[in-house]
Amino acid sequence: MTGSSLCIQLINPNTSLGMTEVMAATARKVASPGTEILAVCPEEGAPSIEGHFDEAIATLGVLQQVKAGREASVDGHIIACFGDPGLLAARELARAPVVGIAEAAMHMATLVATRFSIVTTLPRTLVIARHLLHQYGFERHCAALHAIDLPVLSLDDGSGMAQQKVREQCIKAKQNDGSGAIVLGCGGMADLAQELTLELGIPVIDGVSAAVRLIESLHALRLTTSKFGDLDYPLPKPLSGRFADLNN
Amino acid sequence: MTGSSLCIQLINPNTSLGMTEVMAATARKVASPGTEILAVCPEEGAPSIEGHFDEAIATLGVLQQVKAGREASVDGHIIACFGDPGLLAARELARAPVVGIAEAAMHMATLVATRFSIVTTLPRTLVIARHLLHQYGFERHCAALHAIDLPVLSLDDGSGMAQQKVREQCIKAKQNDGSGAIVLGCGGMADLAQELTLELGIPVIDGVSAAVRLIESLHALRLTTSKFGDLDYPLPKPLSGRFADLNN
Amino acid sequence: MTGSSLCIQLINPNTSLGMTEVMAATARKVASPGTEILAVCPEEGAPSIEGHFDEAIATLGVLQQVKAGREASVDGHIIACFGDPGLLAARELARAPVVGIAEAAMHMATLVATRFSIVTTLPRTLVIARHLLHQYGFERHCAALHAIDLPVLSLDDGSGMAQQKVREQCIKAKQNDGSGAIVLGCGGMADLAQELTLELGIPVIDGVSAAVRLIESLHALRLTTSKFGDLDYPLPKPLSGRFADLNN
Amino acid sequence: MTGSSLCIQLINPNTSLGMTEVMAATARKVASPGTEILAVCPEEGAPSIEGHFDEAIATLGVLQQVKAGREASVDGHIIACFGDPGLLAARELARAPVVGIAEAAMHMATLVATRFSIVTTLPRTLVIARHLLHQYGFERHCAALHAIDLPVLSLDDGSGMAQQKVREQCIKAKQNDGSGAIVLGCGGMADLAQELTLELGIPVIDGVSAAVRLIESLHALRLTTSKFGDLDYPLPKPLSGRFADLNN
Amino acid sequence: MTGSSLCIQLINPNTSLGMTEVMAATARKVASPGTEILAVCPEEGAPSIEGHFDEAIATLGVLQQVKAGREASVDGHIIACFGDPGLLAARELARAPVVGIAEAAMHMATLVATRFSIVTTLPRTLVIARHLLHQYGFERHCAALHAIDLPVLSLDDGSGMAQQKVREQCIKAKQNDGSGAIVLGCGGMADLAQELTLELGIPVIDGVSAAVRLIESLHALRLTTSKFGDLDYPLPKPLSGRFADLNN
Amino acid sequence: MTGSSLCIQLINPNTSLGMTEVMAATARKVASPGTEILAVCPEEGAPSIEGHFDEAIATLGVLQQVKAGREASVDGHIIACFGDPGLLAARELARAPVVGIAEAAMHMATLVATRFSIVTTLPRTLVIARHLLHQYGFERHCAALHAIDLPVLSLDDGSGMAQQKVREQCIKAKQNDGSGAIVLGCGGMADLAQELTLELGIPVIDGVSAAVRLIESLHALRLTTSKFGDLDYPLPKPLSGRFADLNN
Repeated sequence: MTGSSLCIQLINPNTSLGMTEVMAATARKVASPGTEILAVCPEEGAPSIEGHFDEAIATLGVLQQVKAGREASVDGHIIACFGDPGLLAARELARAPVVGIAEAAMHMATLVATRFSIVTTLPRTLVIARHLLHQYGFERHCAALHAIDLPVLSLDDGSGMAQQKVREQCIKAKQNDGSGAIVLGCGGMADLAQELTLELGIPVIDGVSAAVRLIESLHALRLTTSKFGDLDYPLPKPLSGRFADLNN
Repeated sequence: MTGSSLCIQLINPNTSLGMTEVMAATARKVASPGTEILAVCPEEGAPSIEGHFDEAIATLGVLQQVKAGREASVDGHIIACFGDPGLLAARELARAPVVGIAEAAMHMATLVATRFSIVTTLPRTLVIARHLLHQYGFERHCAALHAIDLPVLSLDDGSGMAQQKVREQCIKAKQNDGSGAIVLGCGGMADLAQELTLELGIPVIDGVSAAVRLIESLHALRLTTSKFGDLDYPLPKPLSGRFADLNN
Repeated sequence: MTGSSLCIQLINPNTSLGMTEVMAATARKVASPGTEILAVCPEEGAPSIEGHFDEAIATLGVLQQVKAGREASVDGHIIACFGDPGLLAARELARAPVVGIAEAAMHMATLVATRFSIVTTLPRTLVIARHLLHQYGFERHCAALHAIDLPVLSLDDGSGMAQQKVREQCIKAKQNDGSGAIVLGCGGMADLAQELTLELGIPVIDGVSAAVRLIESLHALRLTTSKFGDLDYPLPKPLSGRFADLNN
Repeated sequence: MTGSSLCIQLINPNTSLGMTEVMAATARKVASPGTEILAVCPEEGAPSIEGHFDEAIATLGVLQQVKAGREASVDGHIIACFGDPGLLAARELARAPVVGIAEAAMHMATLVATRFSIVTTLPRTLVIARHLLHQYGFERHCAALHAIDLPVLSLDDGSGMAQQKVREQCIKAKQNDGSGAIVLGCGGMADLAQELTLELGIPVIDGVSAAVRLIESLHALRLTTSKFGDLDYPLPKPLSGRFADLNN
Repeated sequence: MTGSSLCIQLINPNTSLGMTEVMAATARKVASPGTEILAVCPEEGAPSIEGHFDEAIATLGVLQQVKAGREASVDGHIIACFGDPGLLAARELARAPVVGIAEAAMHMATLVATRFSIVTTLPRTLVIARHLLHQYGFERHCAALHAIDLPVLSLDDGSGMAQQKVREQCIKAKQNDGSGAIVLGCGGMADLAQELTLELGIPVIDGVSAAVRLIESLHALRLTTSKFGDLDYPLPKPLSGRFADLNN
Repeated sequence: MTGSSLCIQLINPNTSLGMTEVMAATARKVASPGTEILAVCPEEGAPSIEGHFDEAIATLGVLQQVKAGREASVDGHIIACFGDPGLLAARELARAPVVGIAEAAMHMATLVATRFSIVTTLPRTLVIARHLLHQYGFERHCAALHAIDLPVLSLDDGSGMAQQKVREQCIKAKQNDGSGAIVLGCGGMADLAQELTLELGIPVIDGVSAAVRLIESLHALRLTTSKFGDLDYPLPKPLSGRFADLNN
């Protein structure tokens, strides 16, 4: 069998079209021939995600997109924000596989290095990364976390300053952490991975492209989200008001 | 100083008025004289919470209520669903302390027993309880988890069957788990704790009343959610569409 | 029901009357109206507790006080030394709830911040705090531990030097640890919490007052130490010699 | 870019040609068009791997094959034995990515279920699986381990008895473990995954095919084993005697 | 150098002369030629140790004996109760090495098996064993804990019934736990280890004899309790009343 | 019984005769009278072990020596390389006890200090030490790891430079880590332990001598590797080619 003629829904949980484009371009570069990347972001929500509150807002947008994607019979869903907002809720809702970019990047990192470092945006988001490391089981595989101390959207302001700070943090991490790889901690950094990998001479990993390939892999393996047990479809119940459109 | 003349907002994350009433009554029984319990539930959302998807929906309702509560200058917020949905997001949004009923019950359990058991509703919710135990650090303090295998709302159907099953599971847990206490794993069980404590002769703990007292305690200690670091107020950004009412 | 007309026994495990007074005053400030604080310390023992040996001595004094408190039908016991010496032994002996000030402060800290720092006295006591974090499940919630490198009784020498060093360590911890709250690691620091909370603008938590409120809370919840299983009363056996007064 | 025209070296660490064939066939079924599967096994070594001793023998064969594969400029190496024997040593030696089938299966399992069960051959190999779960960070994601209590080569004896026992254990695991997915704990079970997935209605995961797709993914992502730090090429030193052929 | 002409103080923390004799005899059987076993127990204290309260009492007796032993210049101290009561306090007080029988047995068990089971006396003591496994780092090495549900002194009542129950539990543990070794969870079982080892055909480990050999080993290695840092001698302070005899 | 007239096989997993001699001399110094140290190293293999690849080579030599030792009826086997290469495989093969020098040193360290530091050779070997700490359960007992950044054989080059760097790292570790003891992370440092212990005034622990005494202890305790379960003798199977000499 082959990995071709798939449709993967790339969900940017925030409403920034710029970031959606950056991530879509990166995803298309790495996708197999015949894999279509359906890049979407919620019409309503937060322009960027920099904390638990933003994640809660974004999760609703993610779920609406997953529902739409399921109705469009996409072959997989990517949650393209480093906090993997709504991951397990999305897995309940989806028929196809769902992969978050944080888990995708972390899984790949453990395949190429014994320990990795994370470079993300604002310090306040570090707690989210730490919780994910803990939940996914990769705490011991992460040597250190770093923040460039610039907001997510600075990656999209055209100045290149955020990109420069990411680069500096990656160089510092390589020198000081004893890590063999670096995980980029924001979807907005997706387009930096390959050049930084070349410049630094160690794997610098972007979760968006990693997730594309993991979805393709699951599809090729004929594996999808288990509908047995706690990831089964949500129990049917009348969702009221602004949530009515999420009714199954 | 005293614990009197507080207003605690008791947020039932689901839309069931019946459960809201049960929890409000329990909360008022245990509250200090002068503490007002402002019991609310979202107008829109899910009638019950039995998985990650339901939690994601409920979280938005929780945040709306926290915002309303903050504007009404309540002295604390309780998230009255055993999954503590939206806990950290709510802490970002709140000025006053926020306590979830799962953490409240678990904290109290560790003060009266070396290990506790949890009795909850549907098996599919066990994963949520396990994640909370892991995140809060109480994995080793929990000897076993049990599910009565009835939906949340069966606690509210007047038949008493669910209550009977809770009772049976608690008795079984006492006999088999080597636990010194039992944590009730659903807000809808709030009214059962004291009679089961008497009948079983071990602490059977309800998180709603525990949370009321923890909020009062934090207030008396002049402690509130830290606004330094990752629980600081959400960064101001324009939330669009159905989320506009959550703008700060 | 109400929290009034309780008698809480505040046990200072060391023999320092000065520290007993400081802690009693702090406890009374935070206690509910009608709660009496019965502050005691052993007549015999160690003037301060700065290691495992001192703790072992202090534990016997704690148990004698718990026994006396039980005979006086107090409504709860506080072990007011940051190592929580004799906590589980005291719970076996007690009918009423027993709370240690280290656990009390740590529990409260996790309700207001995602991570906390600890500031204590001598470096040699850090191992005790680390063991407690490990045993209580809060290892991941503690970002760092700091010692002022002055003995416990320097807090009681009237010079204010120790208090100044605590203040400096708290400021350093806020700047460097990425913690949202600070736990004061010695009962003798009890009176510093509220002013430091105001000065630093983050929760600085004292376990003595936290424990007072937790005991009141357990009482209001009609929860007490489980007498089923491993916290049941000690098996009756003839304790000889200097321990005879501990016979049940 | 595309995933085509890759050469992946599938290394069966034992000397069983039958098992090599079974795994090669499975690998080819799942490989992308244009991916060549170069299936090899050591000429010398152990006919099956059922303990740490067998693994130690097999590791040398793995390394010889990795060296040969590197000289043949293969694009990736798969260690096709559930203990992932020699994984980190192989990563030191390799230029291309190296993936073990145990890690591959476990990673994929965590993407489709909250917990998985493992079904393997002899009870004495369970310790190896437990160590891998611990090392990879998936301990909490594994609900239970099961052994069919038949040797590895019974999967290759044509009787189908071992296959039947695997099937029975998988059914039992689904019923009893509360797992949403099952990981097959032996390369010799590779050909069973897809039919069992269909029959049981939950993901039953084979590490061989999972590893093929992970190698393809790493290649598409232009990620390879980090040569910075502890996975750098072995330090050149004269290997003597029977090991001379492993000299770099 | 040699292991001869040592004096090891074997401290039975309870006041039972019978148990002291049993343990002394076992210790002498295993001691090197020239090693003298100075078996002592406190004159005052508890006749047996079956909980945290008993341990607290026993700890004081242990410390008095350690002080006496230090003044008598013994070459090492053994704390011969499975809870290792007062271990770290004793290490502060001692110049020579101090070894507890629980840690001794657990360390040895990890050298001969990948996992071990524990067989102890009363169920209420299981919590103590679990805490030690956690503190020493051997949680994962322990497959299961079992209690014969008879008090400690039943081992000393001459009926042999407790010994028979220990034997039955060991046989059950071998059959059911998948453990390669068994740790006897009470000093009163010391004399059973060698015959059970022969009968069961797996290592059945007694901590008393293990501790004797570990002390001899530390002495031969010229290693003793570190007096640098948190195990340094207790800070000199006036211990009052019944504790005055513990003044340094 | 006595510890005399034992034959312990000291296996240096690398082919360096110089290191074998250094370790043999250290072992003989600490051995009991009547204990013979049979020091061996593989005729074929790697001259030093500085990574996973080297360990894999060395493991085969270890197993050949264990087989030879078993045929010569030695009373125990020591794997004298800090990575404990092939430890569990050797335990399967051996009748007598097998102890690795890393585990030996770490076990002893936990008996004399609450935390220890490790000083080893090349940074690339730190991952091996970290994995052992994790596997043995001593992660929390290790405060820090240090590398002198010189290859193993520099310890054998007669210049003393490596020894000087070890000394400097130990002094730094004592000053900065808050550790009470230091574990020497290479068999080639065996002869430094006792002088550094004297100079630094804290236990500096060599695993070679520790292992000698642990083997003697297991023998005195009549404990040997469990042959029940996963450490049972390897299943008989025809090992082919260069491995034929390992056939049972």
